[in-house]
Amino acid sequence: MSEIVRKGMLLKNASNLLIKANTKDKNEALKKVSESLEEYKELILMENEKDVEQAVRMHMKESLVDRLRLTEQRIRDMMEGIKAVMDLKDPVWQSKEVWTLENGLNISKMSVPLGVIGIIYESRPNVTVDAFALALKSGNCILLRGSSSAIFSNKALVYAIKEGLKKSNISEDVIQLIEDTSRESVVEMLKLNDYIDLIIPRGGSGLIQSVVKNATVPTIETGVGNCHIFVDETAKVEEAVKIVVNAKTQRPGVCNACETVLVHESIAEEFLPLLKEALNQTVEIRGCLLTKQIIDVAEATEGDWSEEYLDYILAVKVISNVDEAIAHIGKYGTKHSESIITEDYSNSEKFLREIDAASVYVNASTRFTDGGVFGFGCEMGISTQKMHARGPMGLNELVTVKYVVRGNGQIRE
Amino acid sequence: MSEIVRKGMLLKNASNLLIKANTKDKNEALKKVSESLEEYKELILMENEKDVEQAVRMHMKESLVDRLRLTEQRIRDMMEGIKAVMDLKDPVWQSKEVWTLENGLNISKMSVPLGVIGIIYESRPNVTVDAFALALKSGNCILLRGSSSAIFSNKALVYAIKEGLKKSNISEDVIQLIEDTSRESVVEMLKLNDYIDLIIPRGGSGLIQSVVKNATVPTIETGVGNCHIFVDETAKVEEAVKIVVNAKTQRPGVCNACETVLVHESIAEEFLPLLKEALNQTVEIRGCLLTKQIIDVAEATEGDWSEEYLDYILAVKVISNVDEAIAHIGKYGTKHSESIITEDYSNSEKFLREIDAASVYVNASTRFTDGGVFGFGCEMGISTQKMHARGPMGLNELVTVKYVVRGNGQIRE
Repeated sequence: MSEIVRKGMLLKNASNLLIKANTKDKNEALKKVSESLEEYKELILMENEKDVEQAVRMHMKESLVDRLRLTEQRIRDMMEGIKAVMDLKDPVWQSKEVWTLENGLNISKMSVPLGVIGIIYESRPNVTVDAFALALKSGNCILLRGSSSAIFSNKALVYAIKEGLKKSNISEDVIQLIEDTSRESVVEMLKLNDYIDLIIPRGGSGLIQSVVKNATVPTIETGVGNCHIFVDETAKVEEAVKIVVNAKTQRPGVCNACETVLVHESIAEEFLPLLKEALNQTVEIRGCLLTKQIIDVAEATEGDWSEEYLDYILAVKVISNVDEAIAHIGKYGTKHSESIITEDYSNSEKFLREIDAASVYVNASTRFTDGGVFGFGCEMGISTQKMHARGPMGLNELVTVKYVVRGNGQIRE
Repeated sequence: MSEIVRKGMLLKNASNLLIKANTKDKNEALKKVSESLEEYKELILMENEKDVEQAVRMHMKESLVDRLRLTEQRIRDMMEGIKAVMDLKDPVWQSKEVWTLENGLNISKMSVPLGVIGIIYESRPNVTVDAFALALKSGNCILLRGSSSAIFSNKALVYAIKEGLKKSNISEDVIQLIEDTSRESVVEMLKLNDYIDLIIPRGGSGLIQSVVKNATVPTIETGVGNCHIFVDETAKVEEAVKIVVNAKTQRPGVCNACETVLVHESIAEEFLPLLKEALNQTVEIRGCLLTKQIIDVAEATEGDWSEEYLDYILAVKVISNVDEAIAHIGKYGTKHSESIITEDYSNSEKFLREIDAASVYVNASTRFTDGGVFGFGCEMGISTQKMHARGPMGLNELVTVKYVVRGNGQIRE
C-alpha cells in the first residue's frame, strides 16, 4: 500500500467520524492546535531553518526565501489566523431553504462537509496551517501536498497540529501530509477518487493547469489573474489615474493586480500623460501603436495582452468603445477581476452584465477581490472557474448540500 | 476545422449574445419553438419512424424502442414541457446576498449563466427538447450529442427548434447538434475546454464513468442509484412494508428505486414474512444467511450489495443496529437516496446526519428524489456528486455566480 493510499484511507475514516463533531468540538480542537504551535515553536523554527538553508544553497530567489522563512512573529500570525477561523460561523448543517410538500414531506436543503479536501501548494508554510483550519471548521479532512522546498517546515507544523489534536475530541487523522515530494506522488493523488472529494491547486499557472488537466478527482482552478481596467470616455480622469496606479502598484505580485489598461480613444490624450506621470517610471508601460503616438513608451506585442506580469509592467491599449473593451477582455482575460471607470450609466451596466468574470467592478480598483475584504474572514484561494465556487473561497465554498426529507409514511402514487 | 470545433465556436459566440437577453426574450423564443414543434410535427414523426425502423431491424429491446418512439401525444408532451419551463422563475441575474463594505463598495453576488452546456445522452428524443428549454431559460447555449439510434429524430427536432428561434430575438446558434455519432466525436467533445463550460452525461453507468474519467471539461455525474431502506427496530411494520413495496415496484427502472433493504435483527422475524407476502412473487428477493433463516429466498452474494438492478429484484440483509446500516450504505451506496424507517428519534437524526447522500429520508419512500416532486419544475438530471450541484438539478443548478462591485473611486490602502 502506498503512502498516499494509506493516508487516504485514514482520512476517509476520520471524515466519517468528523461528521459527528459539533461546532464546540471543532473550535476547541482549533484552540488546542493553536496552543500546540506555541508549544512547539522552537521545533518549527529549527526545522524551517533547514529548508531555508537548503533554499539559500540552491540559490532560490530572495523573495521566495522570504515567503518560506518562519519567525516567531509569523507563528503568532498563524495562531491569529486560527483564532479568526474559530470566530467564523460554522458553515455546516445550516439551511436557507426549508419547505413542505402537499403530501406533508418536509424538505431541508442542508449544508454538509465535502469530505476530504486535497491541496497542492508551493513553498509557503503558512498555507499548511490556514488550509487545515479552514478545512476543520467546515468539517472536512485535509490531505496536504506541499513543495519539497518546505518539507521540513511542513512536517514540523503537521507534527505540532497533530499533538494539539490529540488533546481534543477530534482525531489526529483529520490531517495528513504527503511526505513523498516526488512528482509521482502528485500524479497518484490526482487519481485518488475513492478517498479525495476535491483537490485545490495553489501556485503558478503551470501547476494549476497540470492539476486541472490530469486530475480525475474534482478540482477547483484558482488564482490566475490577467485583470483589466477600462477607462471609458466619461471617466473622471484623476480618479481613473488613482485607481489604475493602485491596482497596478499596491501589490503587483498578486492575482488581482491590474495587468492591462484599456483606454477610450476620446480620453486617451488627456489620461495617458497623467497616468505615465503618476506611475513615475516605477512601472514599465508597453503600449499599442495609438498609445505610442501619445506617450513615449515601449511597444506592446500580441503576447503582452495575454501576460500576467505579476510585476511593475503595464500593458496599455487605446480602443474605440465599451464593446471593444468587452471583446478584448473576453479574448485575453482569465475571468478573475475586471473594472470599468466611467460616469456613463448604460456602459457601467453593460460592462457588469456582459463581462464574464468572478468579480466585475465599476469605479474601483481590482485589488478588492479577496475573501478577507469581501467579509468571508479568510479564503482557501480565488476560484477562476465557474463550477461549484467562483471568486474568493471561504468556508461556505468548502461545503456541499444534502436534501434532508422527513416524512410519516409517504409513498409515491 | 472539425464539426465540433465549428459548432463550439458558434455556441461561444451565441453565448456572448445570449447574456444580453431578458426573460421576455427567452420566453418568447421558447413559445416560438413550441409552435414550431407543432408546425413540423409531420417531419419529426417521419424522421423518427426511420430511427424506429432501424431499431426494430437491429432487434433493439422493446422497452428501448418504446422510449425512442415519438407520437403526436409525445410531441404535445414536449410542448407542455416547454410551457412548464416558461412558467418557471428566471434563475439569472438574481441575488440573495447584497452587502456594503465600510469603504462604501457595494457587492452583489449575482447568478449568471454558465455559458455553454454539453449533454451526452442515449436514445430518448424528448431529452433533446427538455435540455434545450432548460438551457435557454437559464441563459445557456447547448451542445447536444445524442445516440446514433436517435439521429434522424434529433436532427428533425433541432431543425424545428432552429426554425422557431429564427422567428424570435434569440439566435438559432444557441443550439447545436453533433451529427457525427462516432465514438471519436464524444472524445473530442470531452476535451473542448475552450468552448464548453460543463458536460452532463445522461445514461447508464458505463457512459457516465467514461465521461467523468476522460473529460477535461468540468462534468456532473448523474443518476446512478443503489438506494437503500433501513427498517429499524422501532419501525411501524405495516408502514415499512408499504414504503419498501413502493420504493421497489412503483417504477423499478429509475435511479431512485430501492435496491437493498437492511432490516434490524429484532424486527426481522415480524417484518420479512410480511414483506415477502406483499411483494407477492413479482419481486425476486435475494437474502443474506439470516434472511434465509426467516423466509425462503435465493441467497445474496457479495455482488448483490453493489448492484443497481433497475428491475424486479431486491437484496435483503439483516443487521444489528443503525451504525451497521450507516456503514453498509457508506460502503455500497452511490450517494443518491437513502431512507430509514424508524420511530426512534436519535436514530433518525443520526441517520440524517451521518449518511453521505444527495437525499436522506425518514419514514418515506426513496422515490421522491425528483426535480418535479421537489418543486423545481423539472430537472436536467440528478447529481450524485458533491461539487457544484447535488441531487435534482433544476434551473438554479445551471447557473454560476459573479460578484458585482459598485464603487465611487475606492482604492485599496
